[in-house]
Amino acid sequence: MFESAKFEHRLDKASFKTLEPALREDLLNAQFQLIDQKRRSLLVLIHGPDGSGKGAVLNRLYGWLDARKLRTLTYDAPTTNALTHPPAWKYWRDLPGYGEIGIMLGSWYQTALVDRALGKIGRSAFTATLEGVRRYEAMLEAEGVSILKLWLYLGADEAQARLKALEKGQYARPVVRQWTEVDTAKERERLWNAAEEVVRLTSTPAAPWHVVPAVDGEYRDAMAGTVLLDMLRAMDTAPAPDPAPRPPPANPAEVPHGLPQFSILSTLDLSKALDEKTYREDLSAAQHRITRLTTAPAFEKRGLVVVFEGSDAAGKSSAIMRLRHALDPRRFRVHPVAAPSDEERARPYLWRFWRRIPALGHTAIFDRSWYGRVLVERVEGFCSPADWGRAYGEINDFEDELTSAGYIVVKFWLAISPEEQARRFEARETIAYKRFKLTPEDWRNREKWPLYEAAVTEMVDRTSTTAAPWTMVEAEDKLYARVKVAKTVADRLEAALGR
Amino acid sequence: MFESAKFEHRLDKASFKTLEPALREDLLNAQFQLIDQKRRSLLVLIHGPDGSGKGAVLNRLYGWLDARKLRTLTYDAPTTNALTHPPAWKYWRDLPGYGEIGIMLGSWYQTALVDRALGKIGRSAFTATLEGVRRYEAMLEAEGVSILKLWLYLGADEAQARLKALEKGQYARPVVRQWTEVDTAKERERLWNAAEEVVRLTSTPAAPWHVVPAVDGEYRDAMAGTVLLDMLRAMDTAPAPDPAPRPPPANPAEVPHGLPQFSILSTLDLSKALDEKTYREDLSAAQHRITRLTTAPAFEKRGLVVVFEGSDAAGKSSAIMRLRHALDPRRFRVHPVAAPSDEERARPYLWRFWRRIPALGHTAIFDRSWYGRVLVERVEGFCSPADWGRAYGEINDFEDELTSAGYIVVKFWLAISPEEQARRFEARETIAYKRFKLTPEDWRNREKWPLYEAAVTEMVDRTSTTAAPWTMVEAEDKLYARVKVAKTVADRLEAALGR
Repeated sequence: MFESAKFEHRLDKASFKTLEPALREDLLNAQFQLIDQKRRSLLVLIHGPDGSGKGAVLNRLYGWLDARKLRTLTYDAPTTNALTHPPAWKYWRDLPGYGEIGIMLGSWYQTALVDRALGKIGRSAFTATLEGVRRYEAMLEAEGVSILKLWLYLGADEAQARLKALEKGQYARPVVRQWTEVDTAKERERLWNAAEEVVRLTSTPAAPWHVVPAVDGEYRDAMAGTVLLDMLRAMDTAPAPDPAPRPPPANPAEVPHGLPQFSILSTLDLSKALDEKTYREDLSAAQHRITRLTTAPAFEKRGLVVVFEGSDAAGKSSAIMRLRHALDPRRFRVHPVAAPSDEERARPYLWRFWRRIPALGHTAIFDRSWYGRVLVERVEGFCSPADWGRAYGEINDFEDELTSAGYIVVKFWLAISPEEQARRFEARETIAYKRFKLTPEDWRNREKWPLYEAAVTEMVDRTSTTAAPWTMVEAEDKLYARVKVAKTVADRLEAALGR
Repeated sequence: MFESAKFEHRLDKASFKTLEPALREDLLNAQFQLIDQKRRSLLVLIHGPDGSGKGAVLNRLYGWLDARKLRTLTYDAPTTNALTHPPAWKYWRDLPGYGEIGIMLGSWYQTALVDRALGKIGRSAFTATLEGVRRYEAMLEAEGVSILKLWLYLGADEAQARLKALEKGQYARPVVRQWTEVDTAKERERLWNAAEEVVRLTSTPAAPWHVVPAVDGEYRDAMAGTVLLDMLRAMDTAPAPDPAPRPPPANPAEVPHGLPQFSILSTLDLSKALDEKTYREDLSAAQHRITRLTTAPAFEKRGLVVVFEGSDAAGKSSAIMRLRHALDPRRFRVHPVAAPSDEERARPYLWRFWRRIPALGHTAIFDRSWYGRVLVERVEGFCSPADWGRAYGEINDFEDELTSAGYIVVKFWLAISPEEQARRFEARETIAYKRFKLTPEDWRNREKWPLYEAAVTEMVDRTSTTAAPWTMVEAEDKLYARVKVAKTVADRLEAALGR
C-alpha cells in the first residue's frame, strides 16, 4: 500500500526555497478562483501517525493561502454539545461555505481507526463504517464539496521513534496527538492495518487518498502543497455541476409509452371521520400518552423528530397545534421550512436541516422538510432529475444517522381530495384571520396535482424504512386526521420507550 | 405594585368567544406588517409564578399568530453548550431575526429572581444585575429588537394553592415550572419581593412590564393578546430608527472652531526595532510561554479572545501567524471579519461576534472585530453618529460579559506611519504572492488617515478598560511588532493564570 512512500523522499532547504514562491503564487491564484466562483468548497483531511507533522502542514497551508477563507475543523477536543447530538452533526455544523477551504484534523476516519485499533469494533463493522463514509463523501462531492485526503506517511519504526521523542517533551510546539489511547503492540498493529484499509477502501475517483512521505518536513509540505494545487485546478476546470434543470412533463399520465400512473393516494379511504365526542376523548388520551412519554426519564437519551408533509390546506398547522399542547414548551421547536438563507444556500442541501436537529431529550417538528427536494423541487424543476434522483438515498442515510443515534423519526403525509382543497381555499378567502394562509400560488399549484401524486408515490416507495416509516393520514376529516397523528406519535414513542 | 391586579378580573367564555376573532385578525395583520417590513423583531417575555399559565399563554399566542414566524426561546432545561460559554451567549444564539417574534420562557430575569430568593445574591448584587439588564434591553431596543414583558399575576394564596394542585399532579398538560428550588417561607417571601423589584426597576419607557391578572384564563389570554397588539402597532408606526447616515467632515482638523487634534498615534515611538537574533530568541521564548499556559489545566476554565485592529498593511496577518504557531490547532480559531451574511444583517450588530465567542478552554483570534463600528463604519459614514456613539458603552458591556465569565481579552492596535504604509503597498504590488492583499480601495483609504487617527484615539480613550486594555503596537518594524504581540499575550495569560 505505502510502498513508494517507504523510500526516502527528501528536499533540501535550498530547493524548497526556490520552489516555494511559485507554488505559493499558484496556490493563491487557484484559491482566488475558488473564492470568486463560490461554486464549490474544499475539505482537506490531514491524517497520519502522531509526530508526522499534521499541525505543521496545517500551519504551512495557512502561511501559503489566504487565511481569511480557511477554517480549521477539529474533533478531538471534547465538546459537550457534540455528545448530545448524532455523531455526524458536528461535521455538518462546521461545514465551510462555497468558496471556502476547511482543513480537518481528526475527521470521520479518526474514531473508526482508533475504535478498530482498540478492538472496540471488529473488521466487518469497520468495513461497514468505511462504506458509510464513501456514501457520505459521494454526497458531499455531488453537493459541491470536494475532498482532498492526505495521509502523512511514516514507517512504523520512524513513527515509534518520534512518539518516544514526543513523550519526552522534545517537541517545543503543540503537537496534534490523536492516537494516545493506542498503546499495546497488538493495538498498534491493528491501527496500521486499519490505516491501510482506510486508504485502500476509501480512495474513490472523486476523493482519492494522497500518501505523503513525511520523514522530511520540506518534502512533505511541498508535496502537500502540490496535490492541493492540483485539486484546486481540477475544481476550477470541472464542468458545471448539473445540466440546467428542466420542468418535467406537464402530466405524468401523458409520458410517452406511459403505463397507467399508480398513485398511493388513490388507495386511501378519505371518508374516514370522527364525531366530536370521540375526537375529544381520543385526542386527549393520545396527548396524555405523549406528555407522559416525552417527560419520562427514558426519553432523555432519545429524541423525537416529526415531519409534516401534505397538500396545501391539508391541515398540517392544526395537527401540529394539537401536538404542541402535549409537549413541554421548553423541550421542543417547530421549524417551518421556508426559503433558505444565504448561509444555507452556500452549503449542501441537508445542512439547513442538520442545523435544526434537536439535542437528545428534545423534539423537533418540521412543517415541511428535506422532502421538499423530491416534492416541490422535483415538480417545479428547481433542481435537476439527477439531484432529486440521488436525494432518496441521501435522505435514507440522513434518517439512518438520526435513528441510529436514538431519535424517533415520525413522518406524516396529510392527504385530502382536490375538491376538499378547493372548499378549504374558498373558506380561507372568507374568514378574516385565515386569509393570510392563502396565496395565488396555492391556486396555481392545484394544476400540478397529478405531478405531485407521482412524486408522493415515489417518495413513499423509496423512503419508507422500518426505522422511519411514512404514515399516510386521511385528512379529509380534520378531526380524524388530528387523532391519527397524535395516536401515531404516541404509539411510536411507546414502541421505542416501552409503556 | 400589583394593586389593581389583585382585584378580580374575569371574562366569561361567551364574551371571550365574541372578542377573539377580531383580536385574532388584528394580531395577524399587525404581525404581517412586522414580517413584511423586516425592520425590527420582538421578544415577548412571559414570567409569573408556577401555575399562572405561562405555557397556556404561549400556546394561545401560537394559535393566534402565524406560527411560521414565531420561536419559543427557553432557558430552564439544562443545555451543556450554554454552560461552557458566557451566560449571555445563549440569548444571543437564539435571537430571532428581524420580522420574527421570539416568545421567551425563563429570560435573563429568571436566574436573578431565583438566586435572590435562595439568598445566593444580596440585594445590592440583585439591583446591580437589574441595572445591567436595563442596559442590555436598551441596546436591543436601539438595535431593532423590541421587548414586551408580561408578568402573569397571581396573589400569594392563589399561587400557593395552584402549586399544591401541581404537586398533586392535577394538571394534565406539561406545566412550565421554574421556581421549584424555592421552598421555604423565607425564600418565597424574598422571591415575591424580588418580583416586585423586577417590575419596578426594569419598567423602562421602551420596555415596560405589563402586569396581567392570571386567575381567570380567558381574561389573562385576552389581555396578553391586547398588549401584544398594542406593541405590534407601536412598532409599526415608530419613526425610522435613525436619520440617514452622513459622512463626517473630510478632515477633523478642519472642524469649525476645532481644537488642534490630539492623536494617540502621535505618542508612539515608531523607531523601535529588533535585530534578527533578538527577534528569534524573544519570539521563541514568548511562544513557549503561550503554549505552556494555554495547555495548562488552569486554562480549561478560562478562554482567550484576541482582537487585532490596525492600519492596512500594518502586519496583522503576520503577527497572527506567529501566535498560531504557539497554539494547539484544535483549540483555536481565527475569525477574519468580512461583510455580514443575511442572517447577521437581520440581527443586532454584536450578534455576529457573539456567535464566534469560543467555548471555555479555547481561543478566538479576531482579524478586525466589533471595533469596526467605531472605526470604518464611523469614518465611512456607514452608520449614524448616534449608532457609533452608543457603541462604546455596548462594547464595554460586551467585553465585561467576557471577562466576567473568565475570558482573557487582549486587544491590539498595530500602528505604522503613512510613509511605511506606502512602501508596503508598493511592495505588495511587486511580490506575486502578496498582490492579492492589495486593492484600489486600500490606496483610497489613505486619504482618510486623519479621520482614522481621530477615531482610533477616541476608541482607545473610551474602551481601554482595566479588564480589557488596549495595547498599542509600534509596528513600523515587523520583528518588533510580532514580539510585542506575543509577549503581551504571554504576559496577560500569566497574569490571569499564574506562572
